[in-house]
Amino acid sequence: MDADARIEAELHAAIDRAGGKGCPPRFSEALAYAVFPGGARVRPQLLLAVAGACGDPDPGLTDAAGAALEFLHCASLVHDDLPAFDDASQRRGKPSVHSVFGEPLAILTGDALIVLAFETIARAGVATPDRMPALTSLVARAVGAPHGIAAGQAWESEPNVPVQQYHRSKTGALFVGATMAGAIVAGEDPRKWRTLGEKIGEAYQVADDLLDAAGMGEDGGKGHGKDELLGRPSCVTELGIDGSVARLKTLVKDAVDSIPEVYGSDSLRELVMAQANRLVPKNLVVAAE
Amino acid sequence: MDADARIEAELHAAIDRAGGKGCPPRFSEALAYAVFPGGARVRPQLLLAVAGACGDPDPGLTDAAGAALEFLHCASLVHDDLPAFDDASQRRGKPSVHSVFGEPLAILTGDALIVLAFETIARAGVATPDRMPALTSLVARAVGAPHGIAAGQAWESEPNVPVQQYHRSKTGALFVGATMAGAIVAGEDPRKWRTLGEKIGEAYQVADDLLDAAGMGEDGGKGHGKDELLGRPSCVTELGIDGSVARLKTLVKDAVDSIPEVYGSDSLRELVMAQANRLVPKNLVVAAE
Repeated sequence: MDADARIEAELHAAIDRAGGKGCPPRFSEALAYAVFPGGARVRPQLLLAVAGACGDPDPGLTDAAGAALEFLHCASLVHDDLPAFDDASQRRGKPSVHSVFGEPLAILTGDALIVLAFETIARAGVATPDRMPALTSLVARAVGAPHGIAAGQAWESEPNVPVQQYHRSKTGALFVGATMAGAIVAGEDPRKWRTLGEKIGEAYQVADDLLDAAGMGEDGGKGHGKDELLGRPSCVTELGIDGSVARLKTLVKDAVDSIPEVYGSDSLRELVMAQANRLVPKNLVVAAE
Repeated sequence: MDADARIEAELHAAIDRAGGKGCPPRFSEALAYAVFPGGARVRPQLLLAVAGACGDPDPGLTDAAGAALEFLHCASLVHDDLPAFDDASQRRGKPSVHSVFGEPLAILTGDALIVLAFETIARAGVATPDRMPALTSLVARAVGAPHGIAAGQAWESEPNVPVQQYHRSKTGALFVGATMAGAIVAGEDPRKWRTLGEKIGEAYQVADDLLDAAGMGEDGGKGHGKDELLGRPSCVTELGIDGSVARLKTLVKDAVDSIPEVYGSDSLRELVMAQANRLVPKNLVVAAE
């Protein structure tokens, strides 16, 4: 099974369980609506790619960890779209969860997806309990406080925002979680894989700023120049479009160079390059080159 | 150290880590505000009591599991108080989290507390990874979908609410989580401890309905007769005050009778009885007897 199919199968199995017998029917619908159809599933793809490069000795745990990251990402999108935050009526080309199901179910959907992430890891961890504590802690750090997604989002409520720390937490943390978790599920030292996650995360952030400036944020969730409207820090505001494209290229090179020597390093380098080329909006590449 | 001190120490250690270096300052404040000062810490008390009756062979894991349940309970209160749900301005005798810190930080506080619950278990699980998967799954089931707190709360968004299932999920699930997790951390069979959690959870629900009817809901969070105002199912509406007090007594007796024979069964029975006597509002006991 290819990575796409593995990820979708794992997501479906978990959502079917969570929204299954006994679940309030609209809640069940909302859970599935928040996860399917997905975006590019970038984080689980990255996790599976790293685990694959390391030989992927325990695919069940790999798939579970990948699904967990995607659930956490989806949870953050659902809560991020709420009126208290971005007040986004659209996400991934369809009405956002709270637009369809109301605020209460949107809040609960995010909550339940966070729980489901940890439950999914725990179910798969029965066979390999030794890796469970490190994997669970790592995933938790990527999304909680003081440095995970929730903390990153919380910087938006502070009078002074340290821009780098804000991006590292809000966007970078889950990419670092992806590469390091990919190593853990394969029994490798996760610390060697931190830089890869950091660089890809930063590249992704720059790409998102470029897309936003070009009128289409991640998953099509934001409108034209929404970062600027919301007064959010953006690489484009700081470096301009050409400077941002150059920065993106440096980050991708750094990412590729950081990949440790393992069984599948070469194919992983190719994969990262190929994915990176898709990050830059076509019209901006032309403009910058 | 007595149970109170153990629980508070574990909660403080985890909140200090989550809100520590690098955490956005107001977010750090909000996390601590949501957890301290606490209510009666009923769920971790119950978990520690069950683990204690079973010999408590691994107090570090016991304390972590207790703190996890309290974080999940606090998270549910913070989200429950939001304008989209109860719109409660007060909780535990002080302004609710969103009243002080705003809606965005209140939503993120709930999210981060859910994550912190699982992180706390994972940190303690390093020494005993074998118990981690079962413990994590159990805790997740108590709060997620289809049968945990989030699902219970989600029933309020359905046109038809199955009353028993609603209460079982919204209130009962975390009590069942407490007794069963107390058994798991002590290496005992959790299934034997389900009934105790169910009966105490139901007793607690009836007591909460009585308190609400008497003008003071759990942790002082609700106003007089709020269940009735919100059209929520209540035992008092169904059975009246005398009938509810009688029901409460039966539930406590059933709870005590369900306690399996272990090392400390007798002291656990006494503890449950003593706690139960504190559940019924004094004026109602007089009225009913």
